Amino acid sequence: MNVILLEPEEVHHQGEVTLIGPRARHVLDVLKARPGQTVRVGILNGSLGFAAVTAATDRSVSLHCTFTSGAPSRPRVDLLLALPRPKVLRRLWAQLAALGVGQIILTNAERVERNYFDTHVLSEASYRPLLIEGLQQARDTWLPRVSIHRQFRILVEDTLAELFPRGQRLVAHPGCGTSDMRLAGIGSNERVLLAVGPEGGWNAFELHLLSGHGFQAFDMGGRTLRTDTACIALVALVHSALRDLSGRADQIRTE
Amino acid sequence: MNVILLEPEEVHHQGEVTLIGPRARHVLDVLKARPGQTVRVGILNGSLGFAAVTAATDRSVSLHCTFTSGAPSRPRVDLLLALPRPKVLRRLWAQLAALGVGQIILTNAERVERNYFDTHVLSEASYRPLLIEGLQQARDTWLPRVSIHRQFRILVEDTLAELFPRGQRLVAHPGCGTSDMRLAGIGSNERVLLAVGPEGGWNAFELHLLSGHGFQAFDMGGRTLRTDTACIALVALVHSALRDLSGRADQIRTE
Repeated sequence: MNVILLEPEEVHHQGEVTLIGPRARHVLDVLKARPGQTVRVGILNGSLGFAAVTAATDRSVSLHCTFTSGAPSRPRVDLLLALPRPKVLRRLWAQLAALGVGQIILTNAERVERNYFDTHVLSEASYRPLLIEGLQQARDTWLPRVSIHRQFRILVEDTLAELFPRGQRLVAHPGCGTSDMRLAGIGSNERVLLAVGPEGGWNAFELHLLSGHGFQAFDMGGRTLRTDTACIALVALVHSALRDLSGRADQIRTE
Repeated sequence: MNVILLEPEEVHHQGEVTLIGPRARHVLDVLKARPGQTVRVGILNGSLGFAAVTAATDRSVSLHCTFTSGAPSRPRVDLLLALPRPKVLRRLWAQLAALGVGQIILTNAERVERNYFDTHVLSEASYRPLLIEGLQQARDTWLPRVSIHRQFRILVEDTLAELFPRGQRLVAHPGCGTSDMRLAGIGSNERVLLAVGPEGGWNAFELHLLSGHGFQAFDMGGRTLRTDTACIALVALVHSALRDLSGRADQIRTE
């Protein structure tokens, strides 16, 4: 944990909070913070700051928090992901939150096995702590929004306009022949929605539907990767391309 | 498995091979290939091709292979990695091979715990099947070379000149303030060696030593990632930057 995240309701109005459980254990056993020392804290979907340890027992820690920054901005990359195997998805939650995604839209596809939808990995009680684990690793507070859609066509035709109203839509498609993400024209406040298919890929109907709804295909280089490897690599690539663009824009402004 | 990889010694001189064990199970149960059908095959560190199934029992498959391509070229990215926790390294082997790395150089560092070196994950018998699993996923045959170095200073000062004689050396260092990988001047046959530190980062001495031996620091964007997430993201970014460069070079040649 590089920051300890708090639920807004946990923090009393003077910035006082008392932790028990894993976060208290972390402060006591890993950070070895004692009264008078400070630790990094943040409020979920809110500000980052510091907290002085005001009291500690062998199982609880009391903190006095001071929040010094505004809320970090929402990561500009959203992910539309064909539901992977439960074991793979379980591994992905924390890593996606750590890399930074605004929302995770999980969907059905022909090559998604039906029983993947029955897993407890899809319950909020199961994935929320994993998302928070990733945020605490990356020192972010933005909890990715998660939505689950059993009907791919209804998602793309009807729901997506609301979930992702504006920005660049991309679909990763090995073999499509262009590695150009076409982000060059994207505005500095616009978002990117990245679609990643199931193991075995999207079928022709799905690709056609995505293309008909503004998704531009691009290729990461011809190697077929496992879903978790591909997601991490792709989200990192899109973030990097957005950073390069804003770096270039900053340069143009200062020239 | 997107290709079935064979050891050179397994293949008889007319291209005949008989598989038992997991690869036979894969051909029979997953690909459901029967006599007369073909599957993709490759030779470790060698050619890719196709094989006709010539016979099958309930536990063995006989193939007749025809190799159609030369050996894929060695991936241009090498990784110098401070030894991660055994659990993390175990997850990384297959993913690194799938993304494509020429060699994996594992090293000690101040923030690497000593007992990490005692794990069986570091025995060739343990990691080789995982590397091959990754290659079979990505349809590559290049088995990454692996070397393990308990003395960081001796590695950097003496051994590295032999392991990585020429090319661009990079060290990922959150907070160093530049996201520029400085690959612009790299030759089209040159390689990149990417150094990734332990959880908690390299210490000042280690960074200084790396910098003194030609490693340029760059930053992936300020978020602190778990070692496995960081490695996957970074290797993907370097591959992508190299592809962009060679794409630009192709463009210049045809202009």
